[in-house]
Amino acid sequence: MIARCNKGLDWVGKLGAADVETQTQDHRENEQSLVFPSGEFRRRVTALQAALDAAKLHAVLLTSAPDIFYVTGFLTRFWESPARPWFVLVPHAGGPVAVIPSIGADLMRRTWVTDIRTWDAPDPADDGVSLLIDTICDLVPDTARIGVPMGLETHLRMPLADFDRVATGIAPRRFSDATGPLQCVREIKSEVEIDKIRTACGIAGQAFDRVPEFAASGRPLDAVFRDFQVALLTAGADWVSYVAGGAGQAGYRDVISPAGPVPLAQGDVLMLDTGAVREGYFCDFDRNYAVGPVSDEVRRAHAALWEATEQVLGMVRPGHLACDVHRLLRDAMSARGLAPLGGRLGHGLGVTLTEWPSFTPRDVTELREGMVLTLEPGARLGSGGLLVHEENIVLRADGAELLSPRAPRDLPEVP
Amino acid sequence: MIARCNKGLDWVGKLGAADVETQTQDHRENEQSLVFPSGEFRRRVTALQAALDAAKLHAVLLTSAPDIFYVTGFLTRFWESPARPWFVLVPHAGGPVAVIPSIGADLMRRTWVTDIRTWDAPDPADDGVSLLIDTICDLVPDTARIGVPMGLETHLRMPLADFDRVATGIAPRRFSDATGPLQCVREIKSEVEIDKIRTACGIAGQAFDRVPEFAASGRPLDAVFRDFQVALLTAGADWVSYVAGGAGQAGYRDVISPAGPVPLAQGDVLMLDTGAVREGYFCDFDRNYAVGPVSDEVRRAHAALWEATEQVLGMVRPGHLACDVHRLLRDAMSARGLAPLGGRLGHGLGVTLTEWPSFTPRDVTELREGMVLTLEPGARLGSGGLLVHEENIVLRADGAELLSPRAPRDLPEVP
Repeated sequence: MIARCNKGLDWVGKLGAADVETQTQDHRENEQSLVFPSGEFRRRVTALQAALDAAKLHAVLLTSAPDIFYVTGFLTRFWESPARPWFVLVPHAGGPVAVIPSIGADLMRRTWVTDIRTWDAPDPADDGVSLLIDTICDLVPDTARIGVPMGLETHLRMPLADFDRVATGIAPRRFSDATGPLQCVREIKSEVEIDKIRTACGIAGQAFDRVPEFAASGRPLDAVFRDFQVALLTAGADWVSYVAGGAGQAGYRDVISPAGPVPLAQGDVLMLDTGAVREGYFCDFDRNYAVGPVSDEVRRAHAALWEATEQVLGMVRPGHLACDVHRLLRDAMSARGLAPLGGRLGHGLGVTLTEWPSFTPRDVTELREGMVLTLEPGARLGSGGLLVHEENIVLRADGAELLSPRAPRDLPEVP
Repeated sequence: MIARCNKGLDWVGKLGAADVETQTQDHRENEQSLVFPSGEFRRRVTALQAALDAAKLHAVLLTSAPDIFYVTGFLTRFWESPARPWFVLVPHAGGPVAVIPSIGADLMRRTWVTDIRTWDAPDPADDGVSLLIDTICDLVPDTARIGVPMGLETHLRMPLADFDRVATGIAPRRFSDATGPLQCVREIKSEVEIDKIRTACGIAGQAFDRVPEFAASGRPLDAVFRDFQVALLTAGADWVSYVAGGAGQAGYRDVISPAGPVPLAQGDVLMLDTGAVREGYFCDFDRNYAVGPVSDEVRRAHAALWEATEQVLGMVRPGHLACDVHRLLRDAMSARGLAPLGGRLGHGLGVTLTEWPSFTPRDVTELREGMVLTLEPGARLGSGGLLVHEENIVLRADGAELLSPRAPRDLPEVP
């Protein structure tokens, strides 16, 4: 795993150095994080620092909501606004340093972070660039490489031109890919993280149980989507970051569309899929329903998908590669006469709806104890329609422990 | 405005060329977009192509959910998963070209886009990189510059290392900043866009009217946040991308925190702020409530904030700069004895919760007819607590037209 930590891409700025001006702010007495005690964050940062060390990186610069939440506990829906960049530097040793817009200082002070540097954003002339350059130059020796996630499933959440200015301003220090160290650490969930995901799964389970109360023949799909979100909130979700689904006579058409006003019809199969969030942690699983009586093909396919999942739930172990699980799921489906979908058949789960690894033929990530994963086998029915099943698990030394309440084998029916 | 279109940053890849393999897929007969008829998207793309032309850019590469929705109508919550990059190239002439994971092909075919090229993502060896390189090399002459949004309020939503591979693979073509052309076009809303935002504002208005049904002394703030989201969905929101708020005896502490379990108390002022979404368009405004009787200071401050807003609603005109509106709001608050907050006092609004421009002292964007904007004056009370007010407007030739149902001058009271 650590071997992937640095793929050799170094980043050197191409613009002139930005004007440098700094603005720091005293922090108030430290308070406990809103989600976990500080020991949990200390554990994470220590693990990340060890992974950085193995990759010969002196620090890591984080810019995305999940990465910053992961190391600090800073949790807010304010990320929805693209206006302001947020930076957290995790140095070689010691705690994280936050370089953030002043509007976030009060909330950041309620985490375990004690070094908080702020600027008045958004500033079109210098939107944290010089403050970030100063911070990096303060904390990182000038011969060092600083990690930034640049690989699969990562994005840089700051303007690209500003990143280039920072890269120029910190020279001769260089940015280098840190996807590997971050993935290694974030992939393995602690028991307190597993509890949060289990809670999110339980909330979704309660909402799925209530689907027969509002999904019925004649009801528009968009109304069903709204009621399902209401059910998730009522069951205790803090917010609902993801709902998708579909409905059709012999399977649905795709699994990512928003809902339209077309009413459910007798004979449809309805699928709802959700990533509901509780205290920053996601669930991600779906459930299928028959709208009145459905065809035998759909009923048999649902039972076969359930059985294929059951088989793989009993087989998956630490030491498997992600591609092994893809093969197990494909084989379990094929053995039952199902035509597996292309694309991935499951993935990691935690502080985002989907995380590394992906169950595809090309992902060779080794599965380890403590990983939280989804098994997501999907099939194309004879008609061309889709049927997708999904469960959430944590991988223990002796195999899978379910976090989602297990789906029923037989397709449940709504009126 | 066009003068900002290119700030001179060119991007040249630093890695070796990626292996090139292509995979295209036939598209089905074109269907009407889910949100607007295709004429609306054609208008946008034509405007964008003119702005690109003025900036001497031969095409623009888009990677983010709002930019891709803006030119294609492709609307899905699937962006919540960071696993897959999505690309849309808008060439010099003709329609957009989608280079996307195959899981999105069916939905993209239901937009007006006819050139759809897919690959089986996520692929750790080549996650769309070679297909994107081929597409760019097919469509863009080798002496050309290709725009990418790199400036304020933009992010590149793809792995940075893959962007570098693409930059190398398309040489001698070069990437260059396209924030200006994109901002120029996205800032001005058509009447059909304005209608969508008005609808979202109306939905939030209905939900705000129902706050007295569920917010009361003794009710935990997190329960109020959940009920408010339920009210938004019940009023017709497709989903609720943003809720924030706060509660405190003499103003709240900050405006970006998630809700905790602390119950509302007599004498609190409660603020709720939302970005609810309907057909891909946001509202963004807040409302304040007194929990039982509150101090005279709070009541007077609320009325003064309302009056300051009223004054600026009557003054703002096309031709003002963003910094002028900031000054008008500050002056209107100061004249009423309020201490204005730092940071911005309003911003653009549309396909994201916040858009360019920002009402700060440093933003010199000229306001134009058709811009949808928020006026968001906030004050710090004597106690140190905050009070923030917000309305959504569209700028007409003769001034502001309200899109949000105007807040009451006098702070409404909940039990």
